[in-house]
Amino acid sequence: MNYEHTSPREVRELIRTGKINYQTSGMCAGYAQANLVILPKEYAYDFLLFAQRNPRSCPLLEVLDEGAKGFHYMADKNANVAMDIPKYRVYRNGVLTEECENVLHLWQKNFVSFLIGCSFSFESELLAADVPVRHIEENRNVPMYNTNIPDEPAGIFCGNMVVSMRPIPHRQVVTAVNVTAAMPKVHGAPIHIGDPAKIGIADLGRPDYGDSVTINEDEVPVFWPCGVTPQAAVMAAKPSLAITHSPGHMFITDVKNISLKY
Amino acid sequence: MNYEHTSPREVRELIRTGKINYQTSGMCAGYAQANLVILPKEYAYDFLLFAQRNPRSCPLLEVLDEGAKGFHYMADKNANVAMDIPKYRVYRNGVLTEECENVLHLWQKNFVSFLIGCSFSFESELLAADVPVRHIEENRNVPMYNTNIPDEPAGIFCGNMVVSMRPIPHRQVVTAVNVTAAMPKVHGAPIHIGDPAKIGIADLGRPDYGDSVTINEDEVPVFWPCGVTPQAAVMAAKPSLAITHSPGHMFITDVKNISLKY
Repeated sequence: MNYEHTSPREVRELIRTGKINYQTSGMCAGYAQANLVILPKEYAYDFLLFAQRNPRSCPLLEVLDEGAKGFHYMADKNANVAMDIPKYRVYRNGVLTEECENVLHLWQKNFVSFLIGCSFSFESELLAADVPVRHIEENRNVPMYNTNIPDEPAGIFCGNMVVSMRPIPHRQVVTAVNVTAAMPKVHGAPIHIGDPAKIGIADLGRPDYGDSVTINEDEVPVFWPCGVTPQAAVMAAKPSLAITHSPGHMFITDVKNISLKY
Repeated sequence: MNYEHTSPREVRELIRTGKINYQTSGMCAGYAQANLVILPKEYAYDFLLFAQRNPRSCPLLEVLDEGAKGFHYMADKNANVAMDIPKYRVYRNGVLTEECENVLHLWQKNFVSFLIGCSFSFESELLAADVPVRHIEENRNVPMYNTNIPDEPAGIFCGNMVVSMRPIPHRQVVTAVNVTAAMPKVHGAPIHIGDPAKIGIADLGRPDYGDSVTINEDEVPVFWPCGVTPQAAVMAAKPSLAITHSPGHMFITDVKNISLKY
């Protein structure tokens, strides 16, 4: 059972009741999945400003009202941000202290939840355009790298951009740029094409996050801004408390990827 | 002297020294002009969230750091948000109490300045595509109307969308949509095409802001989200203090309109 053709609402129910507690890649084909960051209100202004200043790596899909667990835009009234992700990570003062299947026991009235676009959305569009996505072919996590591209700082949040890399056949690089540029709410166009050293990456074979993938002779490494960037900025700022999704364990929205083009 | 071919830096200097104290329409051709809202920090989170939820009517170009008068992105180091606009409006508890040529005497360390995209930018692109812009032809202000389209509320800020209207020859409506859709940072595509009653406008001859313009037999009224929307939301929320530009007296940035496409 891979849940490719199950509705987001049904999959969220299976997640909430513990029947799905693993990665969500490939579930609910066509529907956008999203990154999550939850912060106490005292950090919310700085984080919202960080996202405004770094829209390529931190494209906000929705910001919930203070204390709210429900959504207005990206999911129906029954969705619950504190229960509908298969695995959460809890950070205290920048240190991972807990992984759990819901965060009801930690919930505070001053929590603000930020839903951030995810490259899963543009990967389905790349595949639709017959552009290969290597880590999917090889059944691995996408390779991600720290770079020397500085974030625009905002309050307590700063750092360098984290990028994801996909090897693209050189004849399809322009197609890959155009397909992803049309989806700015899920990271949009690449930030760099070609030589990894130009953006401070020493060795493509040793990603900082995720897995390495095969790069063939006729392929060019293409780099996109990555949703790990805001997570890295949050960890570095060491807020007293922060909650995120566990990598690959995303929030499945009721909004189709194609809607994120407009 | 119309300053069409003067640099933004020179015009800002003339504004700062009081030599220009009138509307900026047509100055510094090719460079983006912007709306301004200044609020004390206690209102900044709600306003930033309002902008995030209403990007069509409130496209943020830059948010200055708390207390800062200088820019990081939209203007050079010499620009000053408290002096470089020809006329400011000061509102206390939602009531206009002062118009002035600078706001240095009112400046507080907790002020946050929001620079918001302006339709002047897409009008120059429309003209470049040979789409007529009637209020420019007739040397009037663009007609603007209150609508029944609700804003997405955020904290203390809510209201209905204000739109600007341009009559477009029916053969050029699709061109007008495409040209402006390419510029989401300055309101982007129209929000409505045709029958004004559908969005709650009773009489195109009586705009709520600006001037009425001629609509010819073969023309369709086309409506775009307008930067007056966030100003109206701010006035309705009645913050203890708010500063805006005076209509038509814009901040002239160092960023070209064409850059706002990317």
